[in-house]
Amino acid sequence: MNAEIVAVGTELLLGDIVNTNAQFLAQELAAMGIGVHFQSVVGDNPDRLRQTLELALGRADLVITSGGLGPTDDDLTKQTICRALGVELYEDKRAREMLEAHFGKTGRVITPNNYKQVMLPQGCVPFYNEFGTAPGCAVEKDGKVVMMLPGPPREIVPMFLKDGREFLARYGDGVIVSTNLREYGIGESALEPMVQEFLDGANPTTALYAKEGEVLIRVTAKEKDRETANKMCRITVNNIKAVLGDVVYGENVDSLEQVVVGLLKEQGKTLATAESCTGGLLSMRLTRIPGASAVFEYGVCTYANRIKAKMLHVPEAVLEQFGAVSPQTALAMARGVREEGGADLGVSITGIAGPEGGTPEKPVGLVYVALCDGENAWVKELRLHRSGREREYIRSLAAMQALDLVRRRLCGFPLIGAKSGEDYER
Amino acid sequence: MNAEIVAVGTELLLGDIVNTNAQFLAQELAAMGIGVHFQSVVGDNPDRLRQTLELALGRADLVITSGGLGPTDDDLTKQTICRALGVELYEDKRAREMLEAHFGKTGRVITPNNYKQVMLPQGCVPFYNEFGTAPGCAVEKDGKVVMMLPGPPREIVPMFLKDGREFLARYGDGVIVSTNLREYGIGESALEPMVQEFLDGANPTTALYAKEGEVLIRVTAKEKDRETANKMCRITVNNIKAVLGDVVYGENVDSLEQVVVGLLKEQGKTLATAESCTGGLLSMRLTRIPGASAVFEYGVCTYANRIKAKMLHVPEAVLEQFGAVSPQTALAMARGVREEGGADLGVSITGIAGPEGGTPEKPVGLVYVALCDGENAWVKELRLHRSGREREYIRSLAAMQALDLVRRRLCGFPLIGAKSGEDYER
Repeated sequence: MNAEIVAVGTELLLGDIVNTNAQFLAQELAAMGIGVHFQSVVGDNPDRLRQTLELALGRADLVITSGGLGPTDDDLTKQTICRALGVELYEDKRAREMLEAHFGKTGRVITPNNYKQVMLPQGCVPFYNEFGTAPGCAVEKDGKVVMMLPGPPREIVPMFLKDGREFLARYGDGVIVSTNLREYGIGESALEPMVQEFLDGANPTTALYAKEGEVLIRVTAKEKDRETANKMCRITVNNIKAVLGDVVYGENVDSLEQVVVGLLKEQGKTLATAESCTGGLLSMRLTRIPGASAVFEYGVCTYANRIKAKMLHVPEAVLEQFGAVSPQTALAMARGVREEGGADLGVSITGIAGPEGGTPEKPVGLVYVALCDGENAWVKELRLHRSGREREYIRSLAAMQALDLVRRRLCGFPLIGAKSGEDYER
Repeated sequence: MNAEIVAVGTELLLGDIVNTNAQFLAQELAAMGIGVHFQSVVGDNPDRLRQTLELALGRADLVITSGGLGPTDDDLTKQTICRALGVELYEDKRAREMLEAHFGKTGRVITPNNYKQVMLPQGCVPFYNEFGTAPGCAVEKDGKVVMMLPGPPREIVPMFLKDGREFLARYGDGVIVSTNLREYGIGESALEPMVQEFLDGANPTTALYAKEGEVLIRVTAKEKDRETANKMCRITVNNIKAVLGDVVYGENVDSLEQVVVGLLKEQGKTLATAESCTGGLLSMRLTRIPGASAVFEYGVCTYANRIKAKMLHVPEAVLEQFGAVSPQTALAMARGVREEGGADLGVSITGIAGPEGGTPEKPVGLVYVALCDGENAWVKELRLHRSGREREYIRSLAAMQALDLVRRRLCGFPLIGAKSGEDYER
């Protein structure tokens, strides 16, 4: 089965919005083993919409549309598809009830054009919309399958995950199971040869997705039943983890901060943060995780030297002798924030995010990240540099490095690249 | 002239990346008055690529491709287009020199396949690539114009803005000038009727783009010469500003934080931030702006009550009587951070970002934002609530509100919705 994704909406042609629906559907179809040969975008123009849909129906087994299901005159997707397929529309009772309930709840009056939305193709499988007013559906005719989904991402995503996937499962010949591993510490190009044997595998398949400073590794198995698929997926996941070791920071997790907050909770420990160049990005990421308050109480953004001295007791002599961007200052910041915050662990970041402020000795991208507990301290020197949108890139990677240092300390993994604080305090 | 945008790359069909190039090109073409009728995405498959390009050449006057210009075997865009147009490829001397210089700089050896990139269609206008190795180009044949651009966003964007736009100007019948206004404080649906007369205008055109919590208003004028276009644009911009007043926070600016940092610099003032539920988001945004260190020295994330008391001197009695999420605590936080940081202005945020922690009296989404200078203090109650991704939405809007409060204070505009601190301190 091969598919075409057709997005309908003039706002896409004008560039008002980016077509994230196409990416979402493409990922989902790829995970189900359904190949996508084309994606198309067309506006709310009857002729061009008809032309696009007929072309798609001619060259694909499965056509999935997004958008054009709403109540206004330029919402034409269903009508155009039905004409092309030779299928009539009917008024769907449950869709009508849901529409009326929706309007009743918000106290608005239903205008007649709203009822257009509850007209569905004869013989379709309706997908009732829990997050909007326009239902979607899937219909099969003459060996072609057409799935019509709403345009807004907050509607199409849950609808596809709930009804769309289930509908398509009948066309698959097995069960598909995926596991996502997240890796931090080895770049994509160095990672690729390490896992080449898995990337070459046909089932389970393994794919790498480079994200900001980290890599998502997706393992997908397709088998006759869920138990076998799970088992096959598990074997490959374990093999990959055995090859990569402690750079794999999580399985089916969203982010490094989620793992760090989870580890702190498990171990009943608290963390305090002191930031200079990242300006609060690290504490912002930690507090993105619901319930972070159990492990995080105090973060400070000491942007000025006098504030580093006042709030974190970084000795003026250290600032003068070594500068604000130095291992010594980073260590003093970590110790200071740990003590002031009464936390188990203190972590700090100080560096030059640019674009100004670099020197030959201390260039833009030089960052120190330090970590301390009650006994020991460590500091890591980073040289982050990339042309274009440099400042945000440096800040983001510095925060990731700090999170990874904390994770490694909590897991008892080696703090790769970090030096002992004693090296600077003799 | 009407256009079709064709993106070439299997990674798009697999959903590995989102097609931001299409949005970028669509916006640019819309601003130039060139209508886009279709967007297509096709993989690195010779037959389907040919089919897609021939279809596009058949139905559009201008075809702009992104991707498929690189050195590997599956980079086929130029070859396929040349075959369809009946044009030969030649080796471009300057492109070859740039390629060799690029490799020389990085110390890598040029493999033979790299020279494929410097082959360009006979009679084309070359677009030399300053940010990558594959040049782009534009070629005209039999009344059709084809522009070939590289795939990576960091290459296609500067190339189109520099060479692509200039090339297309010859097909336009005038000069296009745009001004972007940014507005915060009135939602898109309430804003629309206020500026309806401008939205209805044909030249200049006015368009609204709702962003996270704010609205971008773009005014575009098309005239015979730049001077007239600038003048027409200016008249509409001034009229819109007259209608909307102080909710327009900037003209051709990137963000509210950029405006706030600029105002602080102009007035020689410093700001200190105290955050609870936003966890450093506000200080992170301020320090995103290069040179923020001139106006921002100290931010603190007081996530725990005992830290609010210790670091900001929020009286224990206030925390006990009114709670951490109260106007009184917000005011005490703002005063505390201003004093501790030795800043001219102190701003604070305390609230319930959820998903847990809400009560009937203090539901999720209740946030207080306070501001103080040496003399006065103000506090604003916010009730932010939206289903789905609630936590990040609440945090983001709370930070925007804090920035806007600072902007209004610095500009001498009314602090809409804020109460005087005295109301709580009698």
